Amino acid sequence: MTDGARHIPEATVSRLPVYLRSLAELLDEKVTTVSSERLAEMAGVNAAKVRKDLSYLGSYGTRGVGYEVEYLAFQMSRELGLTHDWPVAIVGAGNLGQALANYGGFTERGFPVACLIDADVDKVGSRIHGVQVHHPDDLPHLVEELGISIGIIATPAVAAQGVADQLVAAGIKSILNFAPTVITVPEGAFLRKVDLALELQVLSFYQEHRAPDPV
Amino acid sequence: MTDGARHIPEATVSRLPVYLRSLAELLDEKVTTVSSERLAEMAGVNAAKVRKDLSYLGSYGTRGVGYEVEYLAFQMSRELGLTHDWPVAIVGAGNLGQALANYGGFTERGFPVACLIDADVDKVGSRIHGVQVHHPDDLPHLVEELGISIGIIATPAVAAQGVADQLVAAGIKSILNFAPTVITVPEGAFLRKVDLALELQVLSFYQEHRAPDPV
Repeated sequence: MTDGARHIPEATVSRLPVYLRSLAELLDEKVTTVSSERLAEMAGVNAAKVRKDLSYLGSYGTRGVGYEVEYLAFQMSRELGLTHDWPVAIVGAGNLGQALANYGGFTERGFPVACLIDADVDKVGSRIHGVQVHHPDDLPHLVEELGISIGIIATPAVAAQGVADQLVAAGIKSILNFAPTVITVPEGAFLRKVDLALELQVLSFYQEHRAPDPV
Repeated sequence: MTDGARHIPEATVSRLPVYLRSLAELLDEKVTTVSSERLAEMAGVNAAKVRKDLSYLGSYGTRGVGYEVEYLAFQMSRELGLTHDWPVAIVGAGNLGQALANYGGFTERGFPVACLIDADVDKVGSRIHGVQVHHPDDLPHLVEELGISIGIIATPAVAAQGVADQLVAAGIKSILNFAPTVITVPEGAFLRKVDLALELQVLSFYQEHRAPDPV
């Protein structure tokens, strides 16, 4: 990891994509400058945090004017490595894998789905939403041929660790895990997890603690 | 919202489900006590943060012993409102909605999928993974009959705000949005979003900044 990455706290890194999405909306609306207050509102954080986060990118805005939207979006895209594509392999061609292969948000934001991987020989060789299904044994070859840099695990929980090991062995250093289980990767590899039920638990916390409706 | 909820910072609330998942693993392994260091390692945060987070629940552990796993899991479940079920309605019976209806992690963690909602009359009345598909017009009735408390939006981006409005109008106060767009809900309703591409952008940040492989 370079110094640049080391100096940006992980929580800030996690918020950069949220800011970027807000900036993309502003660009769509032909807005040229944005205050930290407005960006904070769009991203759902407070303005002081926005200013602190953006200072890590070397962006401080102009008093009374704010930040230049287009330049800030460029800086952020560059920092996030979004100035080029990151082809993705999705492992598991079940319901979730198929849904992810068809998820519009990936390709348009620089993460084209290069292939699906499934051990089921009935699926291998077929195309799902235009994406070819391959056998796990082909992973090392596919990584090289298709330039795959990120692996998405969309298998049942019991298969997830084995898949992670296969991905790492094939040379993939970044893994996004959707399987509802904790897995580990060796040092030097990056792992993020999306636990779909966790978000529901956060909602149930607030619902449990909210005031009763006025009668 | 009650005082209890107000006093726990949002970031802590977001971590409680992660701790709870780790505690469930320890219970599976018949482990009876856990140190903050071990729990921190399992949850991927630092030990000081674990101790601080748990202090909001009134849990301080015992020096040299740690926390009692079963009691801590109970406290956390109660705080998260997981001592009873929260039936869920999934709006959008496309690939993603179908995958979510079939996601094992929901029912087993207290979020049974009570119904799917889709405007497509060809889908209304059918069952997908055992879940009945209903028309959006039936929402107010379904909320009452099935006791639905959380709505999941799994529609294309363009439809998401309209669906959120329908859910709130039907009396649903907690919404989890999977559509890749920013939506808003009125005050008193809770909204969480899962942007599947955001996690990929965090991975690309670290991959972009990682040191080159030794040659």
